[in-house]
Amino acid sequence: MREIATGLTKDTTLCISLSGRPGNTGTRFHNWLYDALGLDFVYKAFTTTDIAAAIAGVRGLGIRGCAVSMPWKSDVIALVDELDASARAIDSVNTIVNTDGRLVAHNTDYVAVASLLASHRVPADRAAAVLGSGGMAKATVAALRDAGFGDVTVVARNEASGAALAQRYGCAWAPELGDVRPATLVNCTPVGMAGGPEASDLPVPVDAVAAADVVFDMVPMPARTPLIEAADARGKTIITGAEVMSLQALEQFVLYTGVRPDPALVAEATAFSRLS
Amino acid sequence: MREIATGLTKDTTLCISLSGRPGNTGTRFHNWLYDALGLDFVYKAFTTTDIAAAIAGVRGLGIRGCAVSMPWKSDVIALVDELDASARAIDSVNTIVNTDGRLVAHNTDYVAVASLLASHRVPADRAAAVLGSGGMAKATVAALRDAGFGDVTVVARNEASGAALAQRYGCAWAPELGDVRPATLVNCTPVGMAGGPEASDLPVPVDAVAAADVVFDMVPMPARTPLIEAADARGKTIITGAEVMSLQALEQFVLYTGVRPDPALVAEATAFSRLS
Repeated sequence: MREIATGLTKDTTLCISLSGRPGNTGTRFHNWLYDALGLDFVYKAFTTTDIAAAIAGVRGLGIRGCAVSMPWKSDVIALVDELDASARAIDSVNTIVNTDGRLVAHNTDYVAVASLLASHRVPADRAAAVLGSGGMAKATVAALRDAGFGDVTVVARNEASGAALAQRYGCAWAPELGDVRPATLVNCTPVGMAGGPEASDLPVPVDAVAAADVVFDMVPMPARTPLIEAADARGKTIITGAEVMSLQALEQFVLYTGVRPDPALVAEATAFSRLS
Repeated sequence: MREIATGLTKDTTLCISLSGRPGNTGTRFHNWLYDALGLDFVYKAFTTTDIAAAIAGVRGLGIRGCAVSMPWKSDVIALVDELDASARAIDSVNTIVNTDGRLVAHNTDYVAVASLLASHRVPADRAAAVLGSGGMAKATVAALRDAGFGDVTVVARNEASGAALAQRYGCAWAPELGDVRPATLVNCTPVGMAGGPEASDLPVPVDAVAAADVVFDMVPMPARTPLIEAADARGKTIITGAEVMSLQALEQFVLYTGVRPDPALVAEATAFSRLS
């Protein structure tokens, strides 16, 4: 007999995710760690057609934590009691923590990007280009600004979103990289993503990779995108989207449980989560 | 490593209970059967301070089933879309089934009592006394009426609730059993309940037990109350509260999953659920 459900009790703490198209990665990451650490928690991905009712349910059922994905990262702002600095930095929520009925919203994507910039010692006194103008670009530009980067350019063909993002965080905007060769390149476009139309492409000319010191790719799958492969082959400092994904999930885990698992366990949980 | 949580996926179906003081019995019963049958379901007991928000969560999160206990068995009537005949019979809900966002309320206590009256062939043409005037007394009186019992007396010291219950279902009320000796005795009081102040007592004089043909005790724990022991010793037909509890949980299980487990499995699940 399987024993998936039998071990649950009335005291088991529930954490959930809400997304338009739920995947299994978060469910597998958190549940693997709960079991490895013997924590009486359980995690499950949900979708909803009524985000207000779903957040009411988080309150009404005392659900401890709730990851929030597209398309509700902004909508939930009005439904929580407080925004943590990480969510305020980018007006976007990917994590809600429920402590005795008080819902505090965080953004662990922002936290993860900021943390990886620091741990990989990305130099703030050199030029950085951020490719793209979506949610991860916003988290990245905010993290760069807050880390003291003085020369940041948002590179995005979409002028409306690109220029607005640049203006908000006091940096430059350009429709294309052109002949600029920044020391730090951060890809926040879907170029290189598994299953996408540009899965085999680089988001910049190869000589821009060659000219950079640090290449940071937000694409989470595969971990080794063509951009990361090209940068690694040239001996650059590389930071992968898989690291962002794992670290942001870890920060959620710590917020929900108060426990910070050791890096070896996190690596195992990450590997398990990516098998689905 | 335990594997309680690791087996869950985004597709796992959640069922819950809502009660003022959650126990483990339902959680253990349902989860044991999910595992035994390999169903991708998980069950967890919750409490709430906001029943409307909790039911909003059932909708918003697509929770498949929700058991409802004291003190919300009436409050949830206004929060669902439809009352099944079992809930309408007693204006009381103990089960909500969510089918594609439509919430239908049932009362499986009523269903269980009606079913046990039939399966034990309790004769409808002889006198029955129902001791008590609470929720289980209401389910019992309604089930007796709907089974065609013509001579039913509600025996309850509390005139307000006892007389009202009797009046609603067209039967008699008496403050005490007196010297009446009905063929069927149904105990819906807490007399005989483990841990209660009258755990060792009988709810009626022993000669009333001797004079009865059928003794039905709603007290769920222990299964063999003093009343059941006294009736069994005298060769009476006995029906226990443990049977009611197991059968009502089974009916919930069938409503949620569409699967009716065989009786041997149900017996095992019941035994497991009562170990907590």
